[in-house]
Amino acid sequence: MNDLQKVLDGRWATVRDDVRAQLGELRLNPDQPTEAYRADVAEAMKQLAASKRPHQGFDPAYGGGGDVGGVVTAFQMLGHGDLSLLVKAGVQWGLFGGALQNLGTARHHDRYLRDTMDGTLLGCFAMTESGHGSDVQHLRTTATYDPAAQEFVIDTPEPGARKDYIGGAARDARMAAVFAQLVTRGTSHGVHCFLVPIRSEAGDPLPGVTITDCGPKAGLNGVDNGRLVFDGVRVPREALLDRYADVAEDGTYSSAIENETRRFFTMLGTLVRGRISVAGGAGTATQKALTLAIRYGATRRQFANPATGEEVVVLDYLAHQRKLLPALATTYALHFAQEDLVGRMHDLQKFDTPAEGSLAGPRTDTADEQLQRDLETRAAGIKAIGTWHATATIQACREAAGGAGYLAENLLPQLKADTDVFTTFEGDNTVLLQLVAKTLLSDYAKRVGRLDLLGKVRFAADLVGGEVAERTGARSVLLRGDVRDRAHQRRLLLAREEHLLASLARRMRAALKPGVDQFAIFNAAQDHLLEAARAHVDRIVFDAFADAVDRAPATVRGLLEHVLELHGLAVLENRRAWFVEHGYLTGGSSKALASGVNELCAALRPHARELVDGFGIPEMWLACPLLDGEQVTTQPPAEEAPADLTAVG
Amino acid sequence: MNDLQKVLDGRWATVRDDVRAQLGELRLNPDQPTEAYRADVAEAMKQLAASKRPHQGFDPAYGGGGDVGGVVTAFQMLGHGDLSLLVKAGVQWGLFGGALQNLGTARHHDRYLRDTMDGTLLGCFAMTESGHGSDVQHLRTTATYDPAAQEFVIDTPEPGARKDYIGGAARDARMAAVFAQLVTRGTSHGVHCFLVPIRSEAGDPLPGVTITDCGPKAGLNGVDNGRLVFDGVRVPREALLDRYADVAEDGTYSSAIENETRRFFTMLGTLVRGRISVAGGAGTATQKALTLAIRYGATRRQFANPATGEEVVVLDYLAHQRKLLPALATTYALHFAQEDLVGRMHDLQKFDTPAEGSLAGPRTDTADEQLQRDLETRAAGIKAIGTWHATATIQACREAAGGAGYLAENLLPQLKADTDVFTTFEGDNTVLLQLVAKTLLSDYAKRVGRLDLLGKVRFAADLVGGEVAERTGARSVLLRGDVRDRAHQRRLLLAREEHLLASLARRMRAALKPGVDQFAIFNAAQDHLLEAARAHVDRIVFDAFADAVDRAPATVRGLLEHVLELHGLAVLENRRAWFVEHGYLTGGSSKALASGVNELCAALRPHARELVDGFGIPEMWLACPLLDGEQVTTQPPAEEAPADLTAVG
Repeated sequence: MNDLQKVLDGRWATVRDDVRAQLGELRLNPDQPTEAYRADVAEAMKQLAASKRPHQGFDPAYGGGGDVGGVVTAFQMLGHGDLSLLVKAGVQWGLFGGALQNLGTARHHDRYLRDTMDGTLLGCFAMTESGHGSDVQHLRTTATYDPAAQEFVIDTPEPGARKDYIGGAARDARMAAVFAQLVTRGTSHGVHCFLVPIRSEAGDPLPGVTITDCGPKAGLNGVDNGRLVFDGVRVPREALLDRYADVAEDGTYSSAIENETRRFFTMLGTLVRGRISVAGGAGTATQKALTLAIRYGATRRQFANPATGEEVVVLDYLAHQRKLLPALATTYALHFAQEDLVGRMHDLQKFDTPAEGSLAGPRTDTADEQLQRDLETRAAGIKAIGTWHATATIQACREAAGGAGYLAENLLPQLKADTDVFTTFEGDNTVLLQLVAKTLLSDYAKRVGRLDLLGKVRFAADLVGGEVAERTGARSVLLRGDVRDRAHQRRLLLAREEHLLASLARRMRAALKPGVDQFAIFNAAQDHLLEAARAHVDRIVFDAFADAVDRAPATVRGLLEHVLELHGLAVLENRRAWFVEHGYLTGGSSKALASGVNELCAALRPHARELVDGFGIPEMWLACPLLDGEQVTTQPPAEEAPADLTAVG
Repeated sequence: MNDLQKVLDGRWATVRDDVRAQLGELRLNPDQPTEAYRADVAEAMKQLAASKRPHQGFDPAYGGGGDVGGVVTAFQMLGHGDLSLLVKAGVQWGLFGGALQNLGTARHHDRYLRDTMDGTLLGCFAMTESGHGSDVQHLRTTATYDPAAQEFVIDTPEPGARKDYIGGAARDARMAAVFAQLVTRGTSHGVHCFLVPIRSEAGDPLPGVTITDCGPKAGLNGVDNGRLVFDGVRVPREALLDRYADVAEDGTYSSAIENETRRFFTMLGTLVRGRISVAGGAGTATQKALTLAIRYGATRRQFANPATGEEVVVLDYLAHQRKLLPALATTYALHFAQEDLVGRMHDLQKFDTPAEGSLAGPRTDTADEQLQRDLETRAAGIKAIGTWHATATIQACREAAGGAGYLAENLLPQLKADTDVFTTFEGDNTVLLQLVAKTLLSDYAKRVGRLDLLGKVRFAADLVGGEVAERTGARSVLLRGDVRDRAHQRRLLLAREEHLLASLARRMRAALKPGVDQFAIFNAAQDHLLEAARAHVDRIVFDAFADAVDRAPATVRGLLEHVLELHGLAVLENRRAWFVEHGYLTGGSSKALASGVNELCAALRPHARELVDGFGIPEMWLACPLLDGEQVTTQPPAEEAPADLTAVG
C-alpha cells in the first residue's frame, strides 16, 4: 500500500481493508438478462449479510455495531465493485433499516431489527410517488386511522399517488416503509412512515397491494425497482413508526413536535445517511472510472512525435491531461470532504449506551440541533456537487478511452449508466442546492439580526462599499495575489461565497414586502440562489481537502499540496468569469488560472498512476481488456507473428 | 404542420416527409436480447432497402438517384426513430457504399453497386484498428501484392492491427472495405482500400479471416460490431479500389497524386459524408430528447406557489428553463448549420451526367479543391461541436425528467446510450477540432503570405495594436454595444475567432525555428488550438442560423429572431470569461449576458412546445409514459377512485 492510500483510507481504513478482502473475489456481471442479474445481486446481498458488515450501522442493543461512519464507509467501497449491489444494500440497510432504526421505537426494533440486519426480512423504502418526487411533503398516499379496528388503512387515492421507482419492490421486498399522509379523526397530520407488509413469504403480493415492475432502466438493472398501489390495505396501529408521533387507540394524535412542517423535516433529517451514502458511492465510482482512464491513457499511444518518430502516450497530450487531471484533483477534494462529512455524521449520530427503557436510536438532543442542521446542509451540498462531478467525470473518462470506452467489457459504460441517476435520487441536485441556499440565507439573516446598531451600520456600509468596489474594480487591488497560492485561492472562494450570499439576501428582502409576487422574485433569482449554494460547497470542499493535506505525513504532503492547488485552480478557472465581472480578479490573473492549470497538469502527469493507485481499488475489480495494454510490448509475441512479416520489409 | 416545421424541413422537406411516412409505423425495441435486437434491425434494413431510399445517394448510371443531400437528410431522420438502424444504414450505404462509390471505379461499380444499394450485398467498413483509431494513416494491416498470383495478400501483422469496432462485422457483413498499407515490390505506398470477402453466403467466416464479436456496448446494440483478423487472405488485384491509385499486373504502382499523405487525405476526403451524417444523427437525436423533456416539463408540476397554493409547472422555473431552452436554441442553430453543410456537400458532390467512359462518382475536379477542403473543415467542426452538444443536452434532458427519465420506457436512456459514441467515432472530437485549427492556421498563413509590404506592415501593427488594446481594455470601447443585438453578437464571435487564430499563429511561428522541440510548442498550445477551432465553428454556426432566419417567412421570423438571440447569448455567456479577459467585454456587459439569457428564457417559455413541434417528430416515435401526463387531468378517473376517498377529506 502506498502512503497516499493510507491518507485516503483515513479514519475507517480497517473497514476499507475488510471490504476489499471480503469482496475481493466477488465480481458481478451486469451484462446478462435482468432477472439473472437481479438474482446474482440478491445472492451477493446474502454474502454481505453473512459478513455481518451491515450490522455495524445498527444499535448495539440489538446486536449492531453502532459504527455509523464505518458502515457508510463500507457501503461506499461497494462503488469500486458493483453499483447495483451498492444501491440494493443501501435500500435494505440504509433506507429501510434506517427508517426502522431512526423513526421506529422499541416495539419495532424488538420485532424487526435483527431480521433486517440479517437480511431475512427484506424491505423497501416507499417514499417517492409518480406525482411527487422532490416535494415529498405533499405526497398523496393516505393512512387513515380506523379506531373501531385499531388499524390504519393505506390507500393510493389517485394515479399520481402510486409509489414509484421503489428499489426492492419489484422482486424481493416483503415489507415496505410507506410514507403516507396520516389521517385520524378526519384531520390530516402530514407525512408519517408505516411498516406495511407487501408480499407473502412465498413472494406473492398481499391482498390490496398491486405491484408492478419499473422495467429496464438506464443502469442499476440488478436492482428491482417497482411500483406499489394500495387499495384499502389494513395494518395494525403499531405499524406507525412512532418515534416522533403516535396515534392512541381512540385515534388521538400526539407529537412532541407541534409544527407539521418542522416534524416532517425532523423525520427526514434522521434519514440523512442515505444522501451521504449516495455522495460516497458517486465518489468511489468516479475513482474507478479515473483509474481505468488514466491507466489506459498512460499506455495508449497515438500519433508520432515528428522529431522522434515515436508515438506519443496520449496522457502526455495537454488536452488529455486537461480532461482527466483536474477532475482527478477534484475527486481527491471530494473524497476528503466526504470523509469529513461521514465523520461529522458518525460523531453526531453515535449510539448512546442504551439505558434501560431509553429510546434506542441515534442521539439527537436539542444541543445537537444546529449540528444536525449543518450536517444536513453539508450532505445536500456535497451530494449535489459530488454526483454532478461523477456524471461529468465518468463521461470524460469514457471519451478519453475512445471506442474501447464504449464497450461493456471495459466497465466504463456500466459506471456511466449506473451513476447517472445519482444526480436525481436521494434528492434532485437542483432542489438540494436550493435547500442549501435557503439554509444559508436563514443563517445569514440570523447573523445580521444579532448585530447591534453599530454592527448594522457597518454591515450596510459594507454592502454599499461592496457595490462601489465592484464598480471600480477596487477589489482586484484588495485581493490581488498569486492565484496559485493556497491562502489566496481560499480568500477568493470565500469572497465569492460571501458576496453571492449577501447580494442574494438583498434580492430576497424584496420578497418580504407585502403584496409582491414572492414566487416571481424567487424565480428570477433562482440561478443566483443555485450559484450561492455552489459557492458555499466549493469552499467547504476546499477546506476539507486543505485540512487533510495538513494532516498528511511528510512523505506525501508535497504531492497532495499540488493536487490541492490544481483543484483550487480548476474551481476558480470554471468560475473565473464571475470573479472578473465582480472585480475580484483582473483579466491577467484570470488568464493565469488557465496557465496554472496547464502547468499543474504537466507537474502531476508523472504522478498520475500513483494518484489513482491511492484509491486502493482491488485489481480484480479493474481487470478488463482496456488495461491489457499495460502488459503488451511493442513487438507482437513470437507465436503470433505472421509468417510473411519479413515480406513487409 | 406548423410554419416552423416548414422552415426546419428546408431544402429536402419532401424527403423528410417521405421518411416520416415510410417509417411511421416502424418502432424497434432496444430492450431485448442483443441477438434479437440485431435481427430486428437487420429486418428493418430490408425495409429501408425496399423503399429504394438508400439508392438515392448513388450514381444514376447504376440506378441511383444522385441525390447526395437527400440521402443524408433521410439518414438523419432515422435519428428520430432508432439509432441502431441509423448507424447500421450508415455503415451499409454511407461507409461501405460510399467507399465503393467514391474510391472504386467502373470495375467495382458494375459488379457491386446495385447489390449494395439493394442490400443483397452487405458490407462493412474496416478502417479502425485496435492500435490505431484516430491516426488511421498509420494503421498496420498490410496488403502485399504478389505478382505471381496477381493477388493482394491481406494480413494482420500484430495484435494492435486487428480491425476493431467494425459495424456489421460480427453478424451480417459478407464483404469488408479493408484499409491497409499497400506494399508492392517491397515498398509501402500508404493506406489504400480493398474489397475483401469475409463471409460465405451461409454466413461462415472465410478461410484466413477470424471474426469476433465486440460484445455488448453502452448503446447501439442493434449494430453488430466486431473484430477482423486477417491471416494471408488473398484477393485479386482488382480488389483494390483504384480510383486514386493502381497496381499493374507486374506490381508497378501508379497514382495521379504523388505525395502519399496528400493521396491519403484525398481518399479520406471523399468519405466526408460519414462525418456529416453523424453530425446530423446527433442533431435529430438531440431534437427528440428535447421534445420529450420539454413536453414533460410543460405538464409536470412540483412544489406549490405559496401565494396561489397551485403546484408550479416545472418548465416555469428559471432553473429548468436554463437547463433546456438555451440548449434548444443551439439545437436550432446546429440544425440550420447542418442543413447548410448538407447543401454544400450536395452541390459539390453531385453526380455529373455520366458521359461514356467517364469516371463514375462524385465530381471533384481541381477547381473544387478549395470548396472540398472547406467542406471537410466545416464537417469536422460541426461534427465535433454538434455531438458534444448532443451528449450534454441529452444528459440535461434525462436529468430534467428526473427518475422517470432513467426508465428505459421513457426513451431518454436509449438516446443517451446510443449517441454517446458519436463524440468518438467518425473522428474523435478533440482530434477533429485540431484538424480544423490546423486548416485555419494554414489558410491564415496563406492570407498573410499574399499581403504586399504595406499590408504586412498594417498586419503587424494590427497585431501589436491588438495587444495594446487588450492591455488597456480599449477594445471594450471599440466593441461596446448591446450584447442582445444580433450584429453585435456576431462582431464578438468574429473578434474571438480572429483573435484566437492570430495569437495562435504567433505562438506557432516559434515552432518553425530550427532546433526547437516542435511537439512541446504544439502541446503547450493545444488548449489554445482547440479553442480557436471552437471559436470558428461557433461563428459559422451562428451565421448559418442567421441566414436561415433571414430567409424565414414573416409568420415565424420574429420568433426565430428570439431563438437566434438566445443561442448567441448562450454561446457568449459560456465563453464570457475569455471576452472579459481580452478586453472585448466589460464586466457589466458580461453580466448582461446572464440576465439576457434569463429574459429570453422567459420570453420563449410560452413558445417552447411550438418550437419542439417544429422538429416534426412523428408521435409514434415519441409515445411513452413520460408524455402520458399530457392527457391526465388532476382528478383520477371515476372507476379508479378508491371507495373511501370521502373519508380522507
